[in-house]
Amino acid sequence: MSVPPAGRVVGIDLGGTKTVAALVGRVGACGPVLRRPSPGPDADPAAVDALLEDIVAELTGDAGPAAVGIGAAGFVDPNGRRIRFAPHLPWRDDPLAERLELRWGVPVALDNDANCAAEAELATGVARGVQSAALVTVGTGIGGALVLGGRVLRGHQGMAGEFGHVQAVPDGLPCECGLRGCVEQYVSGRAVLRAARDAGLGPIQAPDGPAVTALARAGDPTAVQVLARVGQHLGVALAGITAAFDPELLVVGGGVADAGDLLLGPARDTLASHLVGARFREVPPVLAARSGAHAGLVGAGLLAHRLLD
Amino acid sequence: MSVPPAGRVVGIDLGGTKTVAALVGRVGACGPVLRRPSPGPDADPAAVDALLEDIVAELTGDAGPAAVGIGAAGFVDPNGRRIRFAPHLPWRDDPLAERLELRWGVPVALDNDANCAAEAELATGVARGVQSAALVTVGTGIGGALVLGGRVLRGHQGMAGEFGHVQAVPDGLPCECGLRGCVEQYVSGRAVLRAARDAGLGPIQAPDGPAVTALARAGDPTAVQVLARVGQHLGVALAGITAAFDPELLVVGGGVADAGDLLLGPARDTLASHLVGARFREVPPVLAARSGAHAGLVGAGLLAHRLLD
Repeated sequence: MSVPPAGRVVGIDLGGTKTVAALVGRVGACGPVLRRPSPGPDADPAAVDALLEDIVAELTGDAGPAAVGIGAAGFVDPNGRRIRFAPHLPWRDDPLAERLELRWGVPVALDNDANCAAEAELATGVARGVQSAALVTVGTGIGGALVLGGRVLRGHQGMAGEFGHVQAVPDGLPCECGLRGCVEQYVSGRAVLRAARDAGLGPIQAPDGPAVTALARAGDPTAVQVLARVGQHLGVALAGITAAFDPELLVVGGGVADAGDLLLGPARDTLASHLVGARFREVPPVLAARSGAHAGLVGAGLLAHRLLD
Repeated sequence: MSVPPAGRVVGIDLGGTKTVAALVGRVGACGPVLRRPSPGPDADPAAVDALLEDIVAELTGDAGPAAVGIGAAGFVDPNGRRIRFAPHLPWRDDPLAERLELRWGVPVALDNDANCAAEAELATGVARGVQSAALVTVGTGIGGALVLGGRVLRGHQGMAGEFGHVQAVPDGLPCECGLRGCVEQYVSGRAVLRAARDAGLGPIQAPDGPAVTALARAGDPTAVQVLARVGQHLGVALAGITAAFDPELLVVGGGVADAGDLLLGPARDTLASHLVGARFREVPPVLAARSGAHAGLVGAGLLAHRLLD
């Protein structure tokens, strides 16, 4: 018995550290999730292609995919065809969607991973029915997306929502993007690990950010402090986003957001204390992305479904 | 001979230091400009009403106004009726538009001064035909506006575009808004004066920011340096706005922008060097607002015309 096309749509989230993928249904349900390490920024781009090939084969078997959606931690052109730049991945101006469509013979949707996460939250998550929102994904790095009129705002060159590379600290820490003092250096899995090491929090190794969350959940006061400090930096960033864009809702996703209120509590407090005119406005709610760490792959799958409609 | 209503539309820009006003035509031409000092943040709110009354009487005489538009350096509610908060002016949650409509018996339009400037640039200035833009007005403080789909984006609570109160420096200089390290403390007429004093640039007194521009134009190297330093801070802010919003165009208005390329040249250089992925995108152009220091009153007048249409 053959699987119908709508059952063979693959959603893939290519993050800076790990890649997750699954079959994604038409309204955002997803099957069992595959996890693979991502190739680093110095890998051969062919290693990314091989990884994607492998994932698609494992998920769709002999039938092959009906469509594939890819969310990538990088800048994607406004048409969703080309990766322009990805600080954590080995791409520079790569026509990824076209190349994979030629290889697989099926439609390939491509977007920034945070835009994909925003699509998932709009379709099935905490942003359902919301007109304006900003989403920040806190993973290895930071991703971001803006929602306006209930749709993801791609920006003039497809690069809107790069909140992670706004300067937070003049002459601050060097960033993988080549700049200094980017928000991402203070709010990310890497920032958690750095803060954990600076605080002398045992033998925590990259990419083992979740270990800090586990320690904090178990009541380790230093781990709680580390997440709170990162949460405060997140709150300052959210205050800046809110001052500039005045959204109805703020959504935080990505792996580090699995820390939940250990991260979001301090972020909310700092947002309220660092937002201009906070006494004369409603401070927007800060909600955890409902799709959690899978929002990116679900949104990528939803974009792929649209190519079949 | 009576003046027709379209000839009696008043546009007023209530800034932190000075208030400018004129009769504004239907497509944005404006008559001779009145200038008055603005009441300070500690003045009686009645002093603002008296100032507005006086201006309208002087511009429209016995015929009185047909409509009045007011751009104010503050947060205006999304419906353009109420001033919620104005750091440089004596208002807190004031139903200004309604109060003045009852007094004058004519429609009163109200918006943030930078939103008004953006309206003027969209109608008659450098943003004509542009779909997405960010506008920064550099005056006593900073104002800002976002344009999307060719329209000014007001935000969920009417407060979008407050780029001046995004944190630029952690634990930085105290700001009139009650926060610390706001962009406005590093990019504004006050920042020019502070930098001029710090650089030992003669007896420059507030609010005499234009004196610094005049000195720089005459070739004084310290004055050139002062404007360049402020321009660099402006460039960092523009890089953050571009990373987050990815606009087609950046527009700089306000009194300090009269310094032209003395300010905008260093701002453009810093934007290009501080924008994430700058090598993989077009860096958006930074243009001076065409309406210059009058953009706010022209835009306010255009909003008032819309109430007559």
